[in-house]
Amino acid sequence: MKEVKIFSPATVANVACGFDVLGFCLDTIGDEMLIRQTDKKGVRITTIDGYELPYETESNVAGVSALAMYNDLKPNCGFEIEIYKKIKPGSGIGSSSASAAGSVYGMNVLLGNPLNKTQLTNYAMKGEALASQSEHADNLAPAIFGGFTLVKSTDPLQIIELPTPSELYATLIHPQIEIKTSESRAILPNDIPLKNAITQWANVGSLIHGLHTSDYNLIKEALNDVVIEPQRKQLIPHFDDVKSAAIEAKALGCNISGSGPSIFALSKGEDVAKAVEKAMRGVYSETDIAFETYVSKINTEGIKIL
Amino acid sequence: MKEVKIFSPATVANVACGFDVLGFCLDTIGDEMLIRQTDKKGVRITTIDGYELPYETESNVAGVSALAMYNDLKPNCGFEIEIYKKIKPGSGIGSSSASAAGSVYGMNVLLGNPLNKTQLTNYAMKGEALASQSEHADNLAPAIFGGFTLVKSTDPLQIIELPTPSELYATLIHPQIEIKTSESRAILPNDIPLKNAITQWANVGSLIHGLHTSDYNLIKEALNDVVIEPQRKQLIPHFDDVKSAAIEAKALGCNISGSGPSIFALSKGEDVAKAVEKAMRGVYSETDIAFETYVSKINTEGIKIL
Repeated sequence: MKEVKIFSPATVANVACGFDVLGFCLDTIGDEMLIRQTDKKGVRITTIDGYELPYETESNVAGVSALAMYNDLKPNCGFEIEIYKKIKPGSGIGSSSASAAGSVYGMNVLLGNPLNKTQLTNYAMKGEALASQSEHADNLAPAIFGGFTLVKSTDPLQIIELPTPSELYATLIHPQIEIKTSESRAILPNDIPLKNAITQWANVGSLIHGLHTSDYNLIKEALNDVVIEPQRKQLIPHFDDVKSAAIEAKALGCNISGSGPSIFALSKGEDVAKAVEKAMRGVYSETDIAFETYVSKINTEGIKIL
Repeated sequence: MKEVKIFSPATVANVACGFDVLGFCLDTIGDEMLIRQTDKKGVRITTIDGYELPYETESNVAGVSALAMYNDLKPNCGFEIEIYKKIKPGSGIGSSSASAAGSVYGMNVLLGNPLNKTQLTNYAMKGEALASQSEHADNLAPAIFGGFTLVKSTDPLQIIELPTPSELYATLIHPQIEIKTSESRAILPNDIPLKNAITQWANVGSLIHGLHTSDYNLIKEALNDVVIEPQRKQLIPHFDDVKSAAIEAKALGCNISGSGPSIFALSKGEDVAKAVEKAMRGVYSETDIAFETYVSKINTEGIKIL
């Protein structure tokens, strides 16, 4: 029986100005999954470790993406999926994406890589849709491609791999509070001032130019969200304090990771990223909210075989 | 008496998805200006050729930008400005920007280049404001810096020089109709759907990545404006036909230049750009609207001494 053990990384979506389109991949946080090829047809979840998630294939994010791929490819075998979940669901660092990506990535390896990364992302989006009620790829793309990614469009799916400046490090703080997806969605405006949209696309353009030219100062100035953050930060206690502390500690920027509650910062160099971590911890240490922090190089490889 | 003769190029602002922030510089169309250093203090417009424009310094775009710089620098001399206007005012290819940039650029040369390009753009914005009632730099930046530019912000003014793929050519058609600035402004929405804003910033990001990687196919897919064009195209007769004809002739994209009425296309290679010109001419030839067309390499040098 062939099997493959994989690391499916956590990711940060939106990246300040790039709501719904930008994302980057983390190195030190991720799920492990074991995908096993079986004689028995079908897709089964056989182990879930770490967090309580449904075993029924059709109700499990990793199962749904796997089934979508399985039903299209109709291979002459089946698959068992073991999930060792390290990324807490609902943390805002791509927990469901890691699961959705992991199963299809592993199956693809076992089948001899018939699918490319964009095709894998397409199947993974089916699983992501189970978690978030809509097909999106801003966490999936960095998980599967690694580095920084831009989802140009989802229909048809078009993913652009952006360059990653070598000294860029991420710091994350995950306050252990729950933000309901429905609430984080409802708080978004249907319409936004054209003026703010212009600021936002100037920043997206600047950030992408900054990534291409390793211009850390420009990256710093581009990491600014005038559209989503002013709304969503209300759902994250002490967000402004964490942001101020991170910037004070020389972070290039500090914004909401995905739809939160995690907050990410980007810094030039690991030392700064660790100082930023300390500053962020300082803020939440004075509250009664439990939290976890991480420092991670940007993971340019993405999901991989262990 | 020292004098300098300069070429101040026409420019295309917005570039489809980058309303208010993106622009590029043209090669074959531009004003000529002669700036002369005089013993007599002050700034005077002494010649205006080509189009009727005010001679009074305070009422002339080139005069206003010159005065702003002159009053700040307080040089121990004066300046005379001769304007040989080739770019028709109100054509949508940066006519006022060419004037506003020309005077300050020429004065700077005569003074031994005390100012950098961003500082010159700042002064030129004062002249631009006379023409368009607001300080903006999306035409000035490409005129002064050359190539493709991104105006990250106007306050403080921050201009990013983008790379220009070597095979990129522009085609322009200028239908000789008048669009009132007030009308082209009034037609813009104050608010836009978040959904459209997301599409637009995905396109801005893609276009900038395409310029960096000379990915003509991506440039093609990014040259799409879902925010401004659907509104403003109503002011330009036969816009949809011109666009269809240009795309049919293999243009990468075809959109409104600035606030119109000129329409620009970008193509890979001069031959395609000329075929696109022919296709555009074909549309307006069947109307009773007079028009002019141009084919131009992207001018990576910008404003220059002749």
